[in-house]
Amino acid sequence: MTRIVQIGLGPLGQKVVRYLLERPNLKLVAVVDPAPDKVGKDAGELCGVKRLGVAVAKDLRSALRGRKAEVALLTTVSDVRRIEAQIARIAAAGLPIVSTCEELSFPWGASPAVARRIDALCRKHGVACVGTGVNPGFLMDFLPSALTGVCQKVEHVRVQRIQDASARRVPFQQKIGAGLTTAQFRKKKEAGTLRHVGLTESMQMVAHALGWKLSRTTESLRPVIAKRRITSGYAPIEKGMACGVEQIGHAFVGRKEVITLEFRAAVGEAKSFDAVEITGTPNLRSVIEGGVNGDIATCAIVLNAVAAIRKVTPGLKTMLDLPPVTCSRS
Amino acid sequence: MTRIVQIGLGPLGQKVVRYLLERPNLKLVAVVDPAPDKVGKDAGELCGVKRLGVAVAKDLRSALRGRKAEVALLTTVSDVRRIEAQIARIAAAGLPIVSTCEELSFPWGASPAVARRIDALCRKHGVACVGTGVNPGFLMDFLPSALTGVCQKVEHVRVQRIQDASARRVPFQQKIGAGLTTAQFRKKKEAGTLRHVGLTESMQMVAHALGWKLSRTTESLRPVIAKRRITSGYAPIEKGMACGVEQIGHAFVGRKEVITLEFRAAVGEAKSFDAVEITGTPNLRSVIEGGVNGDIATCAIVLNAVAAIRKVTPGLKTMLDLPPVTCSRS
Repeated sequence: MTRIVQIGLGPLGQKVVRYLLERPNLKLVAVVDPAPDKVGKDAGELCGVKRLGVAVAKDLRSALRGRKAEVALLTTVSDVRRIEAQIARIAAAGLPIVSTCEELSFPWGASPAVARRIDALCRKHGVACVGTGVNPGFLMDFLPSALTGVCQKVEHVRVQRIQDASARRVPFQQKIGAGLTTAQFRKKKEAGTLRHVGLTESMQMVAHALGWKLSRTTESLRPVIAKRRITSGYAPIEKGMACGVEQIGHAFVGRKEVITLEFRAAVGEAKSFDAVEITGTPNLRSVIEGGVNGDIATCAIVLNAVAAIRKVTPGLKTMLDLPPVTCSRS
Repeated sequence: MTRIVQIGLGPLGQKVVRYLLERPNLKLVAVVDPAPDKVGKDAGELCGVKRLGVAVAKDLRSALRGRKAEVALLTTVSDVRRIEAQIARIAAAGLPIVSTCEELSFPWGASPAVARRIDALCRKHGVACVGTGVNPGFLMDFLPSALTGVCQKVEHVRVQRIQDASARRVPFQQKIGAGLTTAQFRKKKEAGTLRHVGLTESMQMVAHALGWKLSRTTESLRPVIAKRRITSGYAPIEKGMACGVEQIGHAFVGRKEVITLEFRAAVGEAKSFDAVEITGTPNLRSVIEGGVNGDIATCAIVLNAVAAIRKVTPGLKTMLDLPPVTCSRS
């Protein structure tokens, strides 16, 4: 039984708590969220489940008063710069950390100075820390890297995550820009709310796994335009409107493109799937039909990573440094 | 550059050497094989490539005279009992070991006493040791285990490795019993030469990854019978004859079947594929279309595991203890 403190009780943190309560090998002992409408309330009730007798604390110090935790789950921000101070406090409390912070999944490429500082403070306090999730953390980085384990040679890695958003929740369809005009889409793009965070981190992680020194990476984001009237979503989308978003990452060694990551979520997409395609010896194409449900998967992998983070030496880790994260309940 | 000693120069060991020579980060410094027709000959020439200036030695002691190696690759036997003494000598020389010994991939279930002894002697000499390969070692154990990383709950794991042997080498078609009468097949089965070794080890490894205590495992082996005349192989196979082999493993917790592994190789099989099917939250089906080429993959994963085996603490490891094995050339 591992004693857990959950830090961050937004929608994702709440789902992590609900999943945690199903696990016989994990015990929620404390919850932190500074939001005034949450502090002091029962964490279970806030998460829409039974009363747990665990009140949400405003900070880690008060959360751990009189309680002993063993691992911290950190589901707060996507930005590695903003998470540094949070990690500093948790590390100082001597707790290993599993976080959903996207940029933390592989900060060595884009933010090496921050990565070095986080690594140093984790080592100083003797704790390990990892950023994970379904993507980044698994589908576009860990999984293709692990699949190259049976390759003698790798020339190119392509990952596609294609999702038909027709049956997804309305907020998800809105989030990907379905039903917007191209002008509205552009505005939303500029506001930064459309962007999937982590594509660059995934490319850096794959490159690291293969020992490639990347010369550059690029990311593009564009609307998927409805080629006909689409009626499979929550509201009809006229021809010429945005029905979703496509984000593509390219990574190069010299002038040669070696990694291509494609993320597309659109209403009316023909089918959902996650595919890894390795060009090499041998060629290899692995497909997860229907795709992995991202909401379930991110919460699950965070909980599954608890056992792995306790097995490694102190420091900032990535999914390439941990033994394989598996769904163990013992 | 990691300095390698290759132990065992059968067909698999020879292919490992050929692949090793393509790797800029590995250097072959010594080769051991006690076969009188190999001792003293140039290892490169025996492997059908250029002269390497590395003579095959009769034992490890003479192989390492005046040479310093860093990792041993061990491709000799499938039986964990027979490999124990070999590991003892390599460990005493202070070398970490990557082996293709099928039973070594997860000996904790079927041969716990041998596993404990190997673990103890590796620890004593401060080296790590792992058994790996495409299967066991990857497709039916590591890969399904790693895929559960995104699951909140797992009820059942099924892995299928289905191969159309029509285009495979004649010895492979003969090995799987293609063209035999059912009586001839039975005789070959009793001789034990048909059996794929490692199904039980793979089931034990998956169970370990998921924290399941298995109550029992079973393995069955039967001929695949031609339902019509098959002409896609190296020789026609009449209706009613064996066209290949099917081996199925079942693992149970209590009375409930929790793992099913199906290995089928037959001439005229409709298509080749490797599939992992997880029943749980979420359900997940991952398919490698065309299947993984086993000959390439086993040699590749052994070489890819060299970096990983140097990163872990001493002892007998499994693929669940190593950081992900990837195709890195640096």
